[in-house]
Order: sequence, then C-alpha cells, then structure tokens
Amino acid sequence: MLTNNPQVRRIVRFALDEDIGTGDITTMTVVPPDVVVDAHIEAKAQGVLAGLPVAQVVLEEVDPTITWEVLHPDGTVVEPGMQVMKIRGRAASLLTAERTLLNFVMRLSGVATATRRFVDAMAKGRVVLLDTRKTTPGLRVLEKYAVRIGGARNHRMGLDGGVLIKNNHIAIRGGDLRSAILEARAKAPALTGIEVEVRTIEEACQAIDAGADMLLLDHMTHEQVVAVRERARAANAQNIKLELSGNVTIDRAHEIAQMDVDFVSSGALTHQAPWLDFSMYIKVPASKSSASQEGHVQDH
Amino acid sequence: MLTNNPQVRRIVRFALDEDIGTGDITTMTVVPPDVVVDAHIEAKAQGVLAGLPVAQVVLEEVDPTITWEVLHPDGTVVEPGMQVMKIRGRAASLLTAERTLLNFVMRLSGVATATRRFVDAMAKGRVVLLDTRKTTPGLRVLEKYAVRIGGARNHRMGLDGGVLIKNNHIAIRGGDLRSAILEARAKAPALTGIEVEVRTIEEACQAIDAGADMLLLDHMTHEQVVAVRERARAANAQNIKLELSGNVTIDRAHEIAQMDVDFVSSGALTHQAPWLDFSMYIKVPASKSSASQEGHVQDH
Amino acid sequence: MLTNNPQVRRIVRFALDEDIGTGDITTMTVVPPDVVVDAHIEAKAQGVLAGLPVAQVVLEEVDPTITWEVLHPDGTVVEPGMQVMKIRGRAASLLTAERTLLNFVMRLSGVATATRRFVDAMAKGRVVLLDTRKTTPGLRVLEKYAVRIGGARNHRMGLDGGVLIKNNHIAIRGGDLRSAILEARAKAPALTGIEVEVRTIEEACQAIDAGADMLLLDHMTHEQVVAVRERARAANAQNIKLELSGNVTIDRAHEIAQMDVDFVSSGALTHQAPWLDFSMYIKVPASKSSASQEGHVQDH
Amino acid sequence: MLTNNPQVRRIVRFALDEDIGTGDITTMTVVPPDVVVDAHIEAKAQGVLAGLPVAQVVLEEVDPTITWEVLHPDGTVVEPGMQVMKIRGRAASLLTAERTLLNFVMRLSGVATATRRFVDAMAKGRVVLLDTRKTTPGLRVLEKYAVRIGGARNHRMGLDGGVLIKNNHIAIRGGDLRSAILEARAKAPALTGIEVEVRTIEEACQAIDAGADMLLLDHMTHEQVVAVRERARAANAQNIKLELSGNVTIDRAHEIAQMDVDFVSSGALTHQAPWLDFSMYIKVPASKSSASQEGHVQDH
Amino acid sequence: MLTNNPQVRRIVRFALDEDIGTGDITTMTVVPPDVVVDAHIEAKAQGVLAGLPVAQVVLEEVDPTITWEVLHPDGTVVEPGMQVMKIRGRAASLLTAERTLLNFVMRLSGVATATRRFVDAMAKGRVVLLDTRKTTPGLRVLEKYAVRIGGARNHRMGLDGGVLIKNNHIAIRGGDLRSAILEARAKAPALTGIEVEVRTIEEACQAIDAGADMLLLDHMTHEQVVAVRERARAANAQNIKLELSGNVTIDRAHEIAQMDVDFVSSGALTHQAPWLDFSMYIKVPASKSSASQEGHVQDH
Amino acid sequence: MLTNNPQVRRIVRFALDEDIGTGDITTMTVVPPDVVVDAHIEAKAQGVLAGLPVAQVVLEEVDPTITWEVLHPDGTVVEPGMQVMKIRGRAASLLTAERTLLNFVMRLSGVATATRRFVDAMAKGRVVLLDTRKTTPGLRVLEKYAVRIGGARNHRMGLDGGVLIKNNHIAIRGGDLRSAILEARAKAPALTGIEVEVRTIEEACQAIDAGADMLLLDHMTHEQVVAVRERARAANAQNIKLELSGNVTIDRAHEIAQMDVDFVSSGALTHQAPWLDFSMYIKVPASKSSASQEGHVQDH
Repeated sequence: MLTNNPQVRRIVRFALDEDIGTGDITTMTVVPPDVVVDAHIEAKAQGVLAGLPVAQVVLEEVDPTITWEVLHPDGTVVEPGMQVMKIRGRAASLLTAERTLLNFVMRLSGVATATRRFVDAMAKGRVVLLDTRKTTPGLRVLEKYAVRIGGARNHRMGLDGGVLIKNNHIAIRGGDLRSAILEARAKAPALTGIEVEVRTIEEACQAIDAGADMLLLDHMTHEQVVAVRERARAANAQNIKLELSGNVTIDRAHEIAQMDVDFVSSGALTHQAPWLDFSMYIKVPASKSSASQEGHVQDH
Repeated sequence: MLTNNPQVRRIVRFALDEDIGTGDITTMTVVPPDVVVDAHIEAKAQGVLAGLPVAQVVLEEVDPTITWEVLHPDGTVVEPGMQVMKIRGRAASLLTAERTLLNFVMRLSGVATATRRFVDAMAKGRVVLLDTRKTTPGLRVLEKYAVRIGGARNHRMGLDGGVLIKNNHIAIRGGDLRSAILEARAKAPALTGIEVEVRTIEEACQAIDAGADMLLLDHMTHEQVVAVRERARAANAQNIKLELSGNVTIDRAHEIAQMDVDFVSSGALTHQAPWLDFSMYIKVPASKSSASQEGHVQDH
Repeated sequence: MLTNNPQVRRIVRFALDEDIGTGDITTMTVVPPDVVVDAHIEAKAQGVLAGLPVAQVVLEEVDPTITWEVLHPDGTVVEPGMQVMKIRGRAASLLTAERTLLNFVMRLSGVATATRRFVDAMAKGRVVLLDTRKTTPGLRVLEKYAVRIGGARNHRMGLDGGVLIKNNHIAIRGGDLRSAILEARAKAPALTGIEVEVRTIEEACQAIDAGADMLLLDHMTHEQVVAVRERARAANAQNIKLELSGNVTIDRAHEIAQMDVDFVSSGALTHQAPWLDFSMYIKVPASKSSASQEGHVQDH
Repeated sequence: MLTNNPQVRRIVRFALDEDIGTGDITTMTVVPPDVVVDAHIEAKAQGVLAGLPVAQVVLEEVDPTITWEVLHPDGTVVEPGMQVMKIRGRAASLLTAERTLLNFVMRLSGVATATRRFVDAMAKGRVVLLDTRKTTPGLRVLEKYAVRIGGARNHRMGLDGGVLIKNNHIAIRGGDLRSAILEARAKAPALTGIEVEVRTIEEACQAIDAGADMLLLDHMTHEQVVAVRERARAANAQNIKLELSGNVTIDRAHEIAQMDVDFVSSGALTHQAPWLDFSMYIKVPASKSSASQEGHVQDH
Repeated sequence: MLTNNPQVRRIVRFALDEDIGTGDITTMTVVPPDVVVDAHIEAKAQGVLAGLPVAQVVLEEVDPTITWEVLHPDGTVVEPGMQVMKIRGRAASLLTAERTLLNFVMRLSGVATATRRFVDAMAKGRVVLLDTRKTTPGLRVLEKYAVRIGGARNHRMGLDGGVLIKNNHIAIRGGDLRSAILEARAKAPALTGIEVEVRTIEEACQAIDAGADMLLLDHMTHEQVVAVRERARAANAQNIKLELSGNVTIDRAHEIAQMDVDFVSSGALTHQAPWLDFSMYIKVPASKSSASQEGHVQDH
Repeated sequence: MLTNNPQVRRIVRFALDEDIGTGDITTMTVVPPDVVVDAHIEAKAQGVLAGLPVAQVVLEEVDPTITWEVLHPDGTVVEPGMQVMKIRGRAASLLTAERTLLNFVMRLSGVATATRRFVDAMAKGRVVLLDTRKTTPGLRVLEKYAVRIGGARNHRMGLDGGVLIKNNHIAIRGGDLRSAILEARAKAPALTGIEVEVRTIEEACQAIDAGADMLLLDHMTHEQVVAVRERARAANAQNIKLELSGNVTIDRAHEIAQMDVDFVSSGALTHQAPWLDFSMYIKVPASKSSASQEGHVQDH
C-alpha cells in the first residue's frame, strides 16, 4: 500500500516541513484553534485523478484527529466541479495541510493525465507504454505510481531495479558488448532482468546471442525492428523483449503502437506533464458566521 | 549559498537514495571501478540555465573525489549544444550520479525558462512578477531559487514567511476582517509582513484602514485597481503594496504589466513548467577503446 | 498548534533519546511493568506556566497509552503547590518520561516568567517588548513560544524570517547603506520586512529615504529617538517602525516604555532566565503498598 | 573528542537548521558571496570559557572552507575584551554561522562559570560537586561537558548511565527497599553503579546491608551524615559513596564542603546559570571600504 | 519497555526500509488489498524464544491495523510446532512484514538459545555469565536483551556504560596503571564502575590498591584467581568484583563455574550463535479458496 | 562502490552511535588525545576476508584524519596472523572505532567464509549458489555483498528486487496460479523477473505456460527436476531458470551441484554463519613507553 510505504511518509514529512517551517503564522494568529469544519477536494479541470492516498498521509501527519472519505478512487476521470474527497477536522489543521495536500494531488494527477492521454493515443495496440527515470527528484515512487494509475507501466524503479547496459558502459569497458552482458549475468541478482541498448541490427544480434532479456532499440525504424525480431526468432530467443526508444511522442503514438515491439518508453509522461488543477473548499459553520458560505482557498 | 543550505543537501540525498537504492547494479557489474573519464553537461534546447550548484552537491554526495568546472553560471540563456559544466572523475561515479544530476538541472532550468518567458512578456513594466506556494513537494527552496534566476521574485517561502489572511480565515472567525488584521499585527513576529486577500473595494478599504502591508487583489479589474490605489493614498497609506492575482496568464502579461499594482503572482511559473533538456556526455579514454568516442547517456 | 509542529516533535525525540539512551535501567530492573498510577505536575515556585503542550508530546512519545488532563493552560500565574496537569499511565512510563517532561516545562516557564516580569515592569506603555535570536540551540521555536506566553512578541524566528541589515553587512559591501536596502528590497521575498541597524540620525535618515520598514536604533537616547521620529514624519514615512536596542534592562523598563519607539528588544528574556521549579508527584496505588503515599520524584 | 561525538554534530545541525531555515535572507541579498574576512570571538564579561570545540563544529557545518585558531582553550578564565578564537573565511558564511556559534559558546560558558563559582566557594574541600539530569533538553552532552570544564563532575549522563532507586520506585513495588537493590544488582549491567535515595538512617542501613554502591542522602543533617558513615564502617562497607542532596546552594557551599560525604549535587549548575556574553568581530578588508573598521555583530 | 525504546523503533524501520525498498512488488501486483487473514508464528526447532516485542513493533510499523496475541512470552523454551504468537490483519501487510519479523525473532532466539545452553552448562554455580560488545552492528540493544532472556547478564551496553582500562590504554599512557585508574575515578561520572584488565597478580594488586571496582582477569588460572582474591581481602577490598576472560568456552563452563570469580564473559553468546528457526503460517479464508489450507511462507 | 552506498554509511553511523552513546568514557578519561599510533588488523583464524571497505567507512566517520592501507583485498583467504589492513591515527580515535570496525569485519568475513565453503563443496558444478532474504536486520546490503565475495550470487536484494509468487499468494487469491503470473507480468516493472514457487510437476507446467522467468522448485527430487526441465523444453521455454530450494545443506552440496538446475539457494549462508575472528593491534610509540610493545585490544 502506498500509505504504508516508508518513502512516501518521508517525502510527505519533508514537504510539510518545508511549507510549515517554524509555524503557519496566519493560522496561528487569526484562526480559533477549536473550530471544526467540513471541507472537500474538488477537481477544477478534466483529467485523471491520482494521489488521494498521499493526501491521506498528509492529513494524518498534520493532525491525526482529521477524518476523511474518498469519494472517487485514483484513476477516475474527473471533470471540473467533481468532488473527490470529503474531509472533516479542525479548520486550523486543514488550512495548514491544504497547500501541501493539493500540491501532491495536482502533480500526481498531472502525471496520470498525461500518461492516460498517451495511452489513449496508442489506441489499444499491444505495445505497452513505459516510463523512464526522468522523474522529479524525491517523487520517484509517487510519480511512478501515477504513471501506473494513468495506464502505463514502469520500466524500473531505480538503478537497483534492473541492469541496463548503455553505450557508455560498453565504451568504458573498451567496446565489448558480449562480455558486458555475460558479466552482468554472472554478477547481478538472479531475479534481475538485463537490458542492452543497441543502435544497429548487428549490435542487436550480439546482444541476443549473449542472452540479454530485453533490448532497448535506440531510434530504430520499422524495418530495423522487423529485422531484429526476425533475428531473435532465428536465434531461438523469441522470449526476448523489445523496447523502442527515441522520438517517442504522442503525435507518433498511433503509429508506434503498430510496431512489432513489446514496449515504448517516454520521459515526457513525467517531465512534460503540467499539474491538474484541484481546490479545497471549506464549509464554514453557520454558528460562526451570519451566513453559511464557501470559500476557495488560494495558493500563496 | 545554495550549496550550504541544509535543506538542499537533504533533498539531494533523498533523491540519490531513491535512485540508487541498494546499488547501481549495472555500474557495479560491468564498469571497471578505476577508469577516470572527462564528461560535460550540455544543453539540448534553448532556455535559461538553473541548478548547477545543485549538480555540484549531487557530485559531492556521490563521490567526493569528482572535480568540476562551471562553464556558464545559472541564469545564462543556453542554446542546444552549449556546454555548461565540465566534470572529471571515476566513470562509475559519474554514471551513478548522472540521472539525478540531470533531473535537478532539467527541472530547475524548466522553471527558470518559464519564468523568464513570462518576465520578458511583461516587457519591463514596473510590475514585479511573483511566484506562489504551488511548488513540487520537496523542491520548494530549489524551485523558488529557479524563479529568482528566471527574473521573478518570491512571494513567501512558506507558511512561516509571512501572514496572508484569506477569505477562509475571515469566514472561520465570523467575518470580521479588521479584527483579524489587528490580531495578526499583535501576534506575528515584528518583521513579518501582513497581506490580506480582498475581492471588493470595500474589503480593500477595510484592510487599508486596519494597517495591512499588502493587499492581494483577487481577480480585480483595471478600474478596481485604480480605485484601491486612490483609497490607499487618501488614507495616507501610500506605502501599501498591491498584488494582483487570478487569471494571470502569459497572454495577458503585457496588459497586466501596465496596471497600477506592485506585484502579480502566477502559480504557472512552477506548476506548468516543462523540463528543459540537458544531457551528460562522457569522453571515453583512448587507452580503453579503439577510438575516442562520445556517448550520450540515456535516461531509463 | 505546537503539538503538531514537526520541529517540536523532533526536539522532544532528541531529548528523550539523550536521556533514555539504551534504556532506563532503574525502571527496567526494579519497577513492575504493569502498575498503573495517577500522577500530577505541581508548581514549586511562583511564576508563569509554559510548556504543557510540550509535556503532552513527551508523554505521547514515551507511551501512547498515557492519558492526561491539563488543569491550567499555559500563561497561568502559578503559585507553589498548584497542580497544573494530571497524568495517568504505567508507572514505568511516567518515571522514564518525568525528567525530560519537567526539563521542558521548567525551562519554558522560566522564560515566560522572565518575560512577564519585564512586561509588567513596562507598566502597559505602548512600546512592545521583543525577543532576539539569543535562544538556546535547539529550542528556538519553544523559547519564542514561551516569550509570547509571557506577553512579549517575537522579533523574527530565524535568519529566514526577515531582513536585518547590520553594520557588518554594510561594511563588507563598502559602506553604502542605501544600495543595501534597495538590493534587499529587490531580492527578498515580497512579504518579508526589512530592518536596518542605525547608530546616528544621519544613518536613520538614509534608511528612511531608502524605504526600510523598520529601524534598529542602536543605543540611541531619548533625544535621538525623537529626532528620528520627526525625520520619518517629514519624509512621509510615518508607518516606519522604530525598535530600540542596547542597554535594555528591566531596571530601565519603565523609562524605556515611555519612549517614542514601537519596540524594544532584549536577549535577557531567554539567556538570563532561570528555570521555574516544578515537580511530578506519583500516587502509589494502595493495593501495592501498605499505605497510599505520595513521593516526590527527584532529578538525578 | 567532543567534535567527533555524533550527538554533538546532530544538535549543531539541528541548531543551524532552526536558525537558517530556508536561508539567511539578509546575507543572500546584500553580502557579496566572495569577500573573505578575518574575525574573532571575544569575551564581554568575566567567567570560564567553554564551547570552542562546538564552535568549530558549527563552522565546519556551515562552510568547510572556513579556518580558525583557538587562542585559549576551554576552561580559561576570560576577561572582557579577551580574544579566544580567530576565524577566517567568507563573510557570508561567518555572518550565517555567527548567532548559532555564539549561542553555544555563551550557554556553555555560562554553565562552566556557574560551576566554577560553586567549586571555588567549596574552598577545595574533599567533597566533590556533581551535576544532575536537569539539563536543557537537547544539550545534555554539552552541558555536562561544561560542568566538567567548570571543575565539577557528572553524576550520570542519562537514565542508562547508572541505577538510582528513589522513593517512588520503592513505593510502586510496595515498599521493599532491600529487594529492589538486590533485583537491580541481579539485572543491571555488571559495570553499572547502584545508588539508593534514603531519607532516614534506618533506610540508609537497609541500603548499606543490601549492597548499594552509593547513597543519596536526601536533606540529611551533619549529624545524620556522621551516623550513616559510622554504620557503613560498622557494616564493613567503607567503600560506599555518600552523596548529599537537597538544599545544596552556593551560600552553603563552604559548610557543605566540610561534611563527611563524597559528593554533593546541585541542579543549579545548569538550570540557574545565565549565559556569559561573547561577541564576534569581523574585520572588513580595506580594499572593500574606505577605511578598515570593526563592527560588532548584533543578536537579532 | 523494549517496544518504546527509540533505538528499537529505529532499527526496525531501518530493517523494513531495506527489505521493502520501493515496494513489495509481488504483494502489490498479485494480492487483493482487502483480504484479512489469521496467521501465527511457529517454532521449527527447540530453543529459547526471544524477540516477540520486536515482532510487535514490526507489525505496528507496517500496518497499525494489525492485531496480535502473544501466546508464550520471551524466555519460553519452545519445541518444533509450538505456536508463539497469533496475528490477524490484511494478508498484504502480513506478507510484507513477514520476513523482517522472522529475521528478528530467529536472530534473537538464536542468541537466547546459545546463552541458555551456556548458562545450563554452568550448572547453577555462583559465577554469573556476561556478554561482550561483540554484537551485530545495529542490534546491540536487542542482542543484549536476548542475552538477558537467555539467563546471562550484560557487561556494559557500550563505551559509555562503564570504564574498562585495557593494556592498550595503559601502554599509550606510558605504562602507569595506577595513575590511569585514579584519573578515571576523578573524571568519569560518579555512578560509573571502573574495571581494569590485568594479566598478572602484580597488576591485579596495583589495580586493587588504586581502587578499581572490578578486575578483568585475562586468561588467569585457578591458582592465580585464588591469589588475587586473597590479595583483595588482605587489602580490605573484598567488594571488588572479579571477571574471568579468555578461553571461556562451553566445554569449560562447568569447570569455570566452580572458580572463585564473580563473572565470566564470552563473546560467543552473540557472535557464534546460529539462528533458531521459526515460520509464519497464514490461514487462508475459506470464502477465498475452495478449501481452507495453510501455506508455509518461504524466505527468499 | 560500497563506500559510497548511502545505506552503508547509515548503518555504520547507527552502529557507532549505539557503541559510543554519550562518549567513550575510558578513552576520554585515560588516553592523552594527541598520541598518534600505528595499528593493524590481523586475522586470528582461517577464512575469507570481507568488509574492509566498511572498516574504512567506520574510520572516516570516527575521525577523518585517520589514514589506512589495505594489505589484502576482500575475498582473500586469510590465515591466523595475517595482517590485512594498516591504520595510522590518534590512539583515542582508533580505540573508539575498534570494536565497531571489528564487528563488521568479523561478521562479514564469517558470511563470506561460510559461503566459500559451500561453493567449494559444490566442486565447480554449473549450478550457481544463491542466498535468501534471511539476513541480519540492518545488514542486508552488507551481508549480500559478503555472499558475493564468498563466491555465490544474490537472489534478490529485497521485496522490490523481483517478483516471487509463493503458495500463500496463490492461496489468498483463491488458487489460480496462472492468473497471478499474468497479473504480475502486466503490472510489475518491465525489467523485473518473475519467479514462481512450485511443488509439483503440474504446478511447474502451469507456471511455464503462463510465462514465468524462473521456477522455485520446492523440495523436488532429481527425477522431478528432470521432468520439469523436459516440460520446459517441450513448451519451447528453454530459457526458463530453475532454482532448487529446501533441504539444501552443505552435506548435499556435491550431489545438488550435479542436478539439472540453474540455482540452489540456502539461508544458511547468512543465518548459520559464525563470525571469523580478527583483532586490532596497536603499536605504542617508544617515546611514550619504556619499551615498544604490542597490545591486543579486547572486546568488552
């Protein structure tokens, strides 16, 4: 579960610390500490919701007496005005938590939305969309979660989650692709997959022969892909996975989805995704004001 | 200095931890540990450079024996192909550090670039552009730094960096704007500025009379702004600062820059900014390969 | 709320760690783990109570099953023998928590008491008493809280809470006070106040003209203060705040309170404040001893 | 060494974090980053110096390029105007480090000074002065170090540093002092001393017979002390240590020093000790200002 | 209590972090998150149970909604098939917690078992068995707890838990054993015991005369021990404790237990102790599978 | 590199903290702080050396001025009396670091030695020996490193390092092995291997057909293994890896090594490995003692 992942709790604490610092002066000086209010989180734009479990961790960390109800699970396509989460607790606590909570939900929903768009553009081909390690520093686990919510898959979670031998690794060794693969196979943990970046059909064949689990086909054309696939079959390595990389844009998504690869990967899912807008609305109790009213909390 | 800010070092360590985990398997298994190489960071797109001090902290944390030279300071307008930083050290260390280093530089340069575009669109009016607290969780100090590099100013660093009384605060108290300001003035630290969100000229007048330092004019028109400024002068409060907020887009930047406010603020500087592309190139030593060559390190 | 401030929880954990170390040997070896007792915290001297919220965090951290009731809120003037907090829980937990709990309450009540004395000596003049950054390392947030409980206000919470340009800053720049103020104004966050230390009327005038928000009048006489105030009015800067500093002792409190300044500041509120004595008393259950009795827990 | 104690480094980092927060705005905005200056730390009052090793850790943590020279070691009796440490480094770094550095030195020198006064008042009797666990939360290791510098000894460092059975422990067990001592002896680590608080000669005898290493004589008179010592000799337990506690004030120091105890303990060494005043002076380089000058850095 | 010891919680978090990393992929991908199951911990070999309080901390940290019941307390002699703890909670949480929980219980029960065997071999002589500081890095507090559960006692918890002057300390000072003891006595905390390593009767006599609390008799014979004991009595130091060290093996346990020493110490209790085997069994609810069945969770 | 792995530095700091606590009293009170000595680490038994990089991190953390030279790299077969590392630095620092340093080296060399013995017993068959997750809590990365030094390979580093579907996972889902594999394949990161625990040839066939990368053959006989291998070939899944588990003891190592599996795994490499004995010897400088001498530092 995301809520019990120690890394998630750490980044939430880090985010609250950087926002609260020595204290939320405004709330401390002008808000009565004992007023309890109802509030809700509401979408302000169309997209894919992601991050409510993180929102819950934010609330828990700010004030364990806050209660909430998730109205729509992560993955829901939201429309402007749609309420996704109800919250009840001390007004002072909600106001202190609000910006950090929204920043997480907006960022993660932005990633999920960009991912879903790309996946939709691929029109249900058999090619699977992957992310990369181009994620915002500190948010790796969360942004990769948002990618999954958006409908794509993760490539690897970090440098410890798989071997990926690139040109530089080969070059530093003096150019021997085969020995690199064999050495990785002999030393890496047994359950770890081994992928090799290749730029020509010749390199692909070397990697296939050396027993790679997966090939990263760098900027290869449709024809090159077909050739590599054939060579894999000829070498009785039909289980090898092919991943296309380079120039993978949403404009080309439909075309790419028809290629004979297993995966395509795109950093844009995370590094070009704008945030999706959400707001928190607090319902002020009638007993405290002449008329019940809702107020949109701003973002400074 | 950014490099000595304890928060910066913490987020860098956090980012390295999440990427390295139990170890960079690829480098550990296929790269000889003692090969020393030269490398450089190169821009792949046009924009404003930001984040090289963070890149230095990344290198220090991964391997204190790495050395570097900054070729262009943060704030430089870079073009594709422009080298911004030279690095020399163990190939194994550079490969382990590379993705985290680039993620910081790409994200921060993205924010600086978006900010510079907005500032340029304002065409050197006297209005100053501000950011908001809509920053990526964990990167507050860094993204606010990138905003400054881009030419705008920070509004406040966090909830402890200034009083900002919004509608919700007032509503929870029962609607009394004046008493809220007086209470904040009486309780907040003496050097802390007090700003009040207002939506009508009447609210603005109340805030001026109660002694606010700054007004957040929410979605006000040019005419409303003029009226507020006049009332401030009439109340002998000509030092009060006016900040326009709401519907502040780059399309309206030129128009807004002509208004009689001191500040406009936009969350888009941080939450809509795509990353700016940079790569690390490693120069493999001739003694290790048949021919000296450069290899572009990818991003998985 | 103080109890939810992440910095408060951190310093409480730090304090418990340093006291408990590898374990409270005495309690572990001689106290039966399942005896539940009632206890209370009692004042042993006259003064101003501060720190019960911190006491609660100490109890939560040591043993979440402990319950308590606050009998008098922070800010109460206590007399010897007055009970301020009731506690119920495992005897072993209370004995382990006791010294750390009391150390916080005694230290903070000491600061609140010293502050209240100074404020009382000022006899309700309009001048507001401020603290400084001369606080015990690690206790900044808590000691500044105690100062507020004592009736004074905070100057700034730390180096990020306001600009204060002193002689050294000016000297290092080469002596130009005006340009320093303008540079701070142009670069500091918009909600951050700017104060300048001045030692002569001439310096004060330069700072007023450059637009400082507040002046730190270093060792100025009554006559100098009057002159500065006049110059501010003449410059149409009547909103500028004046703070007197230097030789601000409780003996001079009444005199200073009559001066035409907005603030005086004194480090003595924190660095000369002795602790206020409190004890914890445990009521041993009759079923465990021949006669119900109370025992004063000592401090080694 | 104090400088390598992990707890010391942690509290120094904690203290710098709370002061610097998101950054030293004043220094960042008005001080040129590359000006290197000489500075020194100077005593402003008479007392006993303590804390220079902590000052060094502060400087190391803020900026590893700073260099320093200790002019007088901890324990030196300083007079107003006496320079104790020379420092050279970036002005920006020194200004950021200054307040935290001085807060440590002033607090610790205050404790050392109060301790030395008490020790001097005891006029070199054979009785040894001990501290208690009434130390400022977070500073235990440092304040106990300052006590040693002042000439007294530590009682125990924390709850893990010795067994001290008090009335409450006995009462919770149902009143059996002997069994408590035997149980502690059987379960506590072999190198840990066992002390028992006693209030009557009868209790003292029980503790002696049960094999306690040390007795805490609570508010005992001269006659009671003599009687206890005799009983110890009679029981062939002449190695037992006697510690007098309660009403141990500096006024009674000379009298107490003549009593037949091994130790007296006083919480006042730490909880009643005011700070000793020190300042940092920065020498501004001539090339940067019209005239070389010294400026006293203030404390806000 | 072990469960509230801050060091215990830290090492548990550390252990969970290293096992879970970015997430338990298997559980996340194939286990429905809402299935609640019953499980139990069962011994697979004969030995002494230790570590159930740590198991509870593991469960709390992974998922606070898990409940448990301890069927047999630490210290119980377990037989293969004996259930020691019942657990109920989300299957996903139990599967994630399982390996870390078992690793703690197996390691600590291994230490308790090895200790009990040694103690039993000593056949209830009056000599007390002690551990050493040869404990697994990170597990000091826990392994020393397991030693106590096994029936032996702790020597000291760490370098701060007692003075132990060894040959190297003496040699570095220039060979003067007496002055070293006196200096330690004058400077160490009052409640700290002082032990001296001696290798000859002559050294023992010097240490006795200088007032050591305890002697570490390095590889001494029965005759040497008798001589030392006599010399102690002659010097009226009959309270001095004697600890035998060197060549203390379980084969010699019975013989050693008859010697006239107070303690023997053996590092083998911790560094030669193999783990004791335990398993977790999960009872799958009938509603989820065709037949209720138990499955042994393996250890990869 | 192990020395730059953030997890390694954390566990080293944790281990030093638990040993040093508030300070090494013995060294602080009896060792002159400025004596510099030479020392070395020496093997006391035959086995495989592992852990010198960790020893270096210990020295760096205790005192950055210590220098060292590695005489034999990890993996060397050491004999009693063989020196493996030379160290030079302050005697006080070496004495404080010594026990923690040796505990790491002794534990890790113990694991490497046990592993090497098992590997040797397999007599260079083509079967590769794997470890499990039964590692000492906190030492996962280090003990898995020692396993590699000993000549075996790692299975996976933690729950995030590979999918391993066991009986319990299947049972909780209601018994469907095929759907579990497909779901894991669809959701796990692309580079993550998928292994399935099987107990019958039928289960093995299901897993092969569903596309598992590796099978964990639980307690299978030679005949069952042969049958599984055949079925894999028949299904054109000759790349599938087979791992034998259960009853894998060193006595059966030679026999197992002849079986037609790729891997066997054994928890005993880590959980049954006793430590390998090492000592630190300090050479006391002649100028400090009448005769240069070597002293063996003990382990309390």
